[in-house]
Amino acid sequence: MKANLAVVALVVAATWTLRAGSAPTAPPAAVATAPDYDPQGALVLPKDFREWVMVGGSLGLGYGDAPPAHEMFAHTLMEPAAYRHFVDTGSFREGTMFALVLQGTAESVLPARRGLFASTMHGVEMSVKDSSRPGVDKAGWAYYAFNGTSAALPRTAAPAPKNSCLNCHAEHARRDHVFIQFYPLLSEAAGDPTR
Amino acid sequence: MKANLAVVALVVAATWTLRAGSAPTAPPAAVATAPDYDPQGALVLPKDFREWVMVGGSLGLGYGDAPPAHEMFAHTLMEPAAYRHFVDTGSFREGTMFALVLQGTAESVLPARRGLFASTMHGVEMSVKDSSRPGVDKAGWAYYAFNGTSAALPRTAAPAPKNSCLNCHAEHARRDHVFIQFYPLLSEAAGDPTR
Repeated sequence: MKANLAVVALVVAATWTLRAGSAPTAPPAAVATAPDYDPQGALVLPKDFREWVMVGGSLGLGYGDAPPAHEMFAHTLMEPAAYRHFVDTGSFREGTMFALVLQGTAESVLPARRGLFASTMHGVEMSVKDSSRPGVDKAGWAYYAFNGTSAALPRTAAPAPKNSCLNCHAEHARRDHVFIQFYPLLSEAAGDPTR
Repeated sequence: MKANLAVVALVVAATWTLRAGSAPTAPPAAVATAPDYDPQGALVLPKDFREWVMVGGSLGLGYGDAPPAHEMFAHTLMEPAAYRHFVDTGSFREGTMFALVLQGTAESVLPARRGLFASTMHGVEMSVKDSSRPGVDKAGWAYYAFNGTSAALPRTAAPAPKNSCLNCHAEHARRDHVFIQFYPLLSEAAGDPTR
C-alpha cells in the first residue's frame, strides 16, 4: 500500500513538473500534504508534521497578562509545499498549514552547563487556511489544538472557537493572519525581511 | 536547468521506489542531499538547509564556564534522508548532515507581552559524517562553522580543528558523536525515548 501511494505521488509530481514546461517556479521536492478532516469536521493531525519546515522558535512567548504556569519552547513548522509557495509569491495559498509544537524545558544535561533546551512535547497547535470549511472567516483560517504528550497526541482536533485564536490573529498578524513578525527565517527566505 | 534537474531527481526517486518492490521501508519524499566540498576541502553550505527537519531547540545553551556575550537561540536541523534513515534504523548513515542555526533574541513585539523569540540569524554550524574525508576521526565526523548573518553567510567553511568541536562530541554525545540527549524529538520519532 505504502509503495503504491509513493508511486502515485511521484507520478503526480513528475506530471506537474513536465506540465510546468521549461520555465517552472521552483519545483516541489515533496508532494503537498492537504488538510484532512474526519466526518465530524475535526482536523486529522498530519502524519508527517514533524518533517515540516521550521520557520520560528520561541521561549515563554505569551499574549496575556498572566504569566504561564510552565514556560515552554514553541517551534513553528510549515507544510513544505505551502512554504515554497510563500517563498515564491509572498502569499499563503489555500491548504497552507502551520504546526506550533510545544515542548517543556530541560537543563543541566552534560555537556551543557548553562541554558535551556526543548524537552518533552506537550501538544501541537495548528492553523489551516481552507476557505471550503464551514464557519471559517473570510480569509479561511481556522485553529486546532492537539493537546497531549508526544506519545499520546490525539488523532483529531475540533476547530477552536473564534475568540480563542482567530480574533487575535486577525488583529495582530503582520500578514494574512500569520504572525510572521515572529518568523524572520520565513521572511528572509522569501527575500524580504520587512514582510 | 531547474526543470531538468527536477525531472532527473524524480526519475531517480521513482526508480528507487520501483526497485524497492512491494515491501520497501518508508520511501523518501525527497532525494538525499550529499555533502559537497570545494577543491580546497571546505564544505559547501547546502542550498536547502533551511528546509531540513528540526530535531532540537535551545536558548543560551553553553558548554563552558564563561557566560556567552549574547544569549542565542539554536535550532538543530537534520538532512531529511538522513533523518528518515535514523528513524528507521537508529544509526547515522554516511553522509548524515546536521545544521545548527544560531539566532539572536527579540521580545516585546505585539501581540507578545512576555517571552523571547528567535530573531536575526547569526551563523550556521554544521556536522557531517563522511569517512571519505581526509583528517576525520574513525567515526567520520567533522565540524564546520559558517559565521555571518542570514544575508551574508559564507558559501564554504573549512573543517574546524579537532579540539574545537570533535573532542567534546566524542566524549559527551549519547550516540555516535551526536548530542541526541538534546534532541528528544529525534529520539521520539525513532520510537525510543532512551536512545
